[in-house]
Formats: sequence, C-alpha cells, structure tokens
Amino acid sequence: MSKVLNDLIESLKCLPGVGPKSATRMAYYLLQRDPNGAKNLANSILNSFKLLGKCKSCNNFCETTICDLCLDQSRDNSVLCIIEMPTDLLMFEQTHSYDGLYYILMGRLSPLDGIGPKELDMNSLYERCKDENIQEIIIATNFTKEGDATSTFITELVKDLNKKISRIARGMPSGSEIEYTDTGTLAQAISERKNIN
Amino acid sequence: MSKVLNDLIESLKCLPGVGPKSATRMAYYLLQRDPNGAKNLANSILNSFKLLGKCKSCNNFCETTICDLCLDQSRDNSVLCIIEMPTDLLMFEQTHSYDGLYYILMGRLSPLDGIGPKELDMNSLYERCKDENIQEIIIATNFTKEGDATSTFITELVKDLNKKISRIARGMPSGSEIEYTDTGTLAQAISERKNIN
Repeated sequence: MSKVLNDLIESLKCLPGVGPKSATRMAYYLLQRDPNGAKNLANSILNSFKLLGKCKSCNNFCETTICDLCLDQSRDNSVLCIIEMPTDLLMFEQTHSYDGLYYILMGRLSPLDGIGPKELDMNSLYERCKDENIQEIIIATNFTKEGDATSTFITELVKDLNKKISRIARGMPSGSEIEYTDTGTLAQAISERKNIN
Repeated sequence: MSKVLNDLIESLKCLPGVGPKSATRMAYYLLQRDPNGAKNLANSILNSFKLLGKCKSCNNFCETTICDLCLDQSRDNSVLCIIEMPTDLLMFEQTHSYDGLYYILMGRLSPLDGIGPKELDMNSLYERCKDENIQEIIIATNFTKEGDATSTFITELVKDLNKKISRIARGMPSGSEIEYTDTGTLAQAISERKNIN
C-alpha cells in the first residue's frame, strides 16, 4: 500500500473508538467521496490548536480569555458546579435544569495514573471557590471510585471557606458516567442534590 | 460553545459512521488527550490530497504513475481481477490466494444514482483488458444487484476480446459485500471461480 495512504490510515487510528478496519474505511471514504469534508477537517483541527485556549474562570476550551458562559450576566453567579470534563458541561446544559456557573477539573484524582491534586491544579479550584459571589459549590464528579474520591478531596479542600457544599443526588446507578446518562435522570440528580456539610 | 470547537465537531461528522455524539467525544479527546495525534491526522489528510493520484494501470491510489503492485514482476500478469473498491483489493491480498493484477472500478453501475458506464470509465477498463499479456479476466464485483449488473455489463463489454472471463464463486451469501467477508470464504470463492463465456 502507498506510504502516504498508510500514514493517513495510521493517523486516523488516533481517534477514540477507531480501529484498523474503521480507519481504512474512513481513509478511502475521505479520498473517494468527501475530499472537501476531509480538507475541512484537517483545517479545523489545525485551527483548533491555533485558536483555542482555556477559559481563566472555568477551564473550558474557548477562543477568549473568559468564555461566553462565564461572562453571561443572565446566569446565577452564586452557584458553582464542579465537573470532570467539558462533555459533562454539555450534558448539564442539555437538561435546562441548571443556570449557574461551572468549573471543569479536566480529569479526576487517580493516583494509579499519576494524577494527583497538583496535576488537576486544585489551587486554581480553591482560588475560584473563594470568589465572594459564590454561595454554593455543587460537586458533580462522576459516581465512580475516582469521582467519589475527587469529591471527598474537594469537600475537604473548600470546607474552610464556610460555603454550602453539595453533591448531585446519586439518582443514577453507581459506577455510571455523567456523559452517558439520559437527561431526565441527570435533571433529577441536580434538583435532588444533598447538602453534605 | 466556542465557534472554533463547534467547527471541529461539525467537520468530524464527515467521517463515515460518526454522528453528533461521537464527533463531540472525538473533538474533546483530540484537544485534551492527543494533540500530537490530531495534528498528525490533519497533516496526513492534507498530504494525501497533495501527493496521492491514481495508478494509470489499476486505478488505485498511489504516489507514482504506476503503483508498486502493478510494477511487481513476481505477480502473475496474465490474470486481471476487476473489483469495485480499493478496500476489496486489501481483502483479496489478505487471503493470500491471488497473485495476479487488479483493476479497480471505483464504484459500480447504479443508474438510480446516475452512475453509468461513462462515470465508471468503462473505456479505460476495455483498454486495460486489451493488454496482450492478460489471458483471464476475473470479475469480482460485489454480489449485490448493482454488482451483478456491473458484472453482466463487463462480460458483454470484453467478450469480443476472446479471453477467458470468470466470476468468483458465489460461495458467499447473496447480498453480502466483499469488504465484510471473512477471508476463508473469499479464498474459496477465488479458487472456485466459474467460467462464464
């Protein structure tokens, strides 16, 4: 097989859930059926890395110093929801049950993978929680072992700020991840959040 | 959501089998976990369109005028296997049951989709089949309605060349496609091909 084509197939394998067979199909599909889509994809990827940075306030990917969501005056700036991943934010927004602000950890504590408080930049989280507008901190890490441990760590970390700290309700089956939950279940978990301090 | 990020998600949807949810996952995965893989992918795509052309002999994608497979002196140049897609060629090679040459149609006759003999460049196929080295033409289009119709058309087209024309054995279930067959079944279909003129 042509080296250039082989390189294309190999590089497609970096996508999550794409193995050798799918990568081959995708490569030929792009070459034969969708050259414009393919070039567009290449440029979008390069553009993303050129233009996207992280919001100073919530950590989400954005093109500006502070993202639109954090700047949105219509949102309730007295509540801060701490989540693991940007995809979790999308799920929360889809429930239309939360109009406060977010803080994205970009991961969870996982000592076995070498991810500790320093790697997750817990200092930034603490600084963010200090904000005098914030009256309630909602912890919405996943209901996995790592997510629960992260929740416990954050509770300890911010308890001296004397703010209300809550955890979204464990309405979802233990071990499941927020990203894959149906919005109804997640909406219930937000409304039934339980005070833990 | 950031426009740049949204563009990335939208452009990932051009990949076959990738819907909104997968595209979102892929976008965040690339940004968070695999920036190098992502840039590599972008460059591979751009490179492919810059460097890849079509082999003058077999129609496959390659960087040179004639591809390595067509130039390979160790292959049997008296047999020409006509297939629909480059992925079919990969399947044939994986069976290790065929060492002749190929001609890739890059599609099949499908009047409803506006693909007729002209769109598939049947003239080029005819010119290729005229080659005096070629003694047998194996038709290996898919066993679908369109593939069978294409096979019939090609049989008519090349019958005045007075060469042996064969069709790989219908050992596979009717309606199935070569790309998804297991290699054992396909190997049998090659060895049991049936003379049809």
